[in-house]
Amino acid sequence: MKRSDLVQAIKSKKSFLCVGLDTDIDKIPTILKKDTNPILSFNKAVIEATQDLCVAYKPNLAFYESYGSKGLHALEETMNHIPQNIFTIADAKRGDIGNTAEKYAQAYFQQMGFDSVTVAPYMGSDSILPFTKHENKWVILLALTSNKGSQDFQMLKLESGDMLFEEVMQASKNWASPDQLMFVVGATHPEKIGAIRKIAPDNFFLVPGVGAQGGDLEGIASYGLNKDIGLLINSSRGIIYAGSDKPNFQDHIRSAALELQSKMEEILIKRGLV
Amino acid sequence: MKRSDLVQAIKSKKSFLCVGLDTDIDKIPTILKKDTNPILSFNKAVIEATQDLCVAYKPNLAFYESYGSKGLHALEETMNHIPQNIFTIADAKRGDIGNTAEKYAQAYFQQMGFDSVTVAPYMGSDSILPFTKHENKWVILLALTSNKGSQDFQMLKLESGDMLFEEVMQASKNWASPDQLMFVVGATHPEKIGAIRKIAPDNFFLVPGVGAQGGDLEGIASYGLNKDIGLLINSSRGIIYAGSDKPNFQDHIRSAALELQSKMEEILIKRGLV
Repeated sequence: MKRSDLVQAIKSKKSFLCVGLDTDIDKIPTILKKDTNPILSFNKAVIEATQDLCVAYKPNLAFYESYGSKGLHALEETMNHIPQNIFTIADAKRGDIGNTAEKYAQAYFQQMGFDSVTVAPYMGSDSILPFTKHENKWVILLALTSNKGSQDFQMLKLESGDMLFEEVMQASKNWASPDQLMFVVGATHPEKIGAIRKIAPDNFFLVPGVGAQGGDLEGIASYGLNKDIGLLINSSRGIIYAGSDKPNFQDHIRSAALELQSKMEEILIKRGLV
Repeated sequence: MKRSDLVQAIKSKKSFLCVGLDTDIDKIPTILKKDTNPILSFNKAVIEATQDLCVAYKPNLAFYESYGSKGLHALEETMNHIPQNIFTIADAKRGDIGNTAEKYAQAYFQQMGFDSVTVAPYMGSDSILPFTKHENKWVILLALTSNKGSQDFQMLKLESGDMLFEEVMQASKNWASPDQLMFVVGATHPEKIGAIRKIAPDNFFLVPGVGAQGGDLEGIASYGLNKDIGLLINSSRGIIYAGSDKPNFQDHIRSAALELQSKMEEILIKRGLV
């Protein structure tokens, strides 16, 4: 997907919501568990309930891989049920040497048809560049993540005075344009988002951690929005398990998504961005 | 697999060779391409030709994922053909927040039965610890990788004076014992292996990059061996494609593995380690 199409979708839906499809069979409604393919049934129900409210879906690969090849097959089938005009993120956090990174690009962009893949920066430029060779496909590079462990290495001070995640952002800006490069910036660091926006004024940020992980939507928006919106805010557990085991679980999923979308609409209007 | 069993296997086979099962359908012998499952056929042929010469197999997940769920299924079937007494490494370079890292642990340790998984350190302790909760299973943490991009971040100088990969090794030593934690140290940095061994005297190092990537076996061994051997040296392309499209391709694969194993045997004897 082109950047302009993503921005257009955000403006037309008045939403920068990404729904995380982190589907765990133990947590889906009992009524779906007897289906031949419960993961797919649940994902279809989530997509049906949210597709007009969100602009992106982000399945985390770990949840699918934990069921082996059958899980990955359920993900492939899920991809067939996501409308073409919704941005798709393979949350895979991959990263490997050049020829292997190209195989990952083939896996996610060609084999499974994702628009983007999350990538870990530790192995450097040649682990990232192969993803940028695919037209209208995106690398979403981990910068500052939402978990406690983000303090261990990402926030280490370098000799240059910068923190590691700042250097990751500065270096990688030379490897791809904002039309193909986004950054993961955790919602649990709202106090840092303003400074991070200065490092990368034009890039989209994928912001996980709103909801179950405790991040704050308004704080993030006020520091993180740019002229093209520039934010995709993800909620996974907070939306997809909102209906827990209730018979009308889809209504609860929709309500949870609508609550976030409404707040986003209000923010976008207040800022004159739509 | 327990550390003592791995050390015993190395001593009895006089080999610390790991064979990388990075199977690419475009590169396997034509004769196998018409099989129902060419990836599995090729892997079985490689295993048959090398299982008495190596102590570990390391499939890189990217190669399997590039064929989607069918590729992952071929990997699951391959796992059924690896003898129980050979150490298995899921070269996946995963790394995610705690609850997700646990899903990856389930995927590789339980669902697919691997002994170990390679993990990227960028997300810190809570992305690594879930793997260590599984008894007799291993985390193999990226420290200094074999690719050119290892210079971009891994070798950055920190305020403390250490390089990032050194800090990764020092910090992670507190998170798991050498019975469950290995480090990836690229063969393309033989000049650094002595200093790296000092940081982690007791941990096994998984050393990729011998062969196709140009690493030097003797140099690595002379600086990297410890009293329990402490090295697994990987070769992928240099072994598995040694027979290219020849009808007797298995003989060539065996010869390539035997050449490395013989050198290892010589080194182990010279050093009095067997």
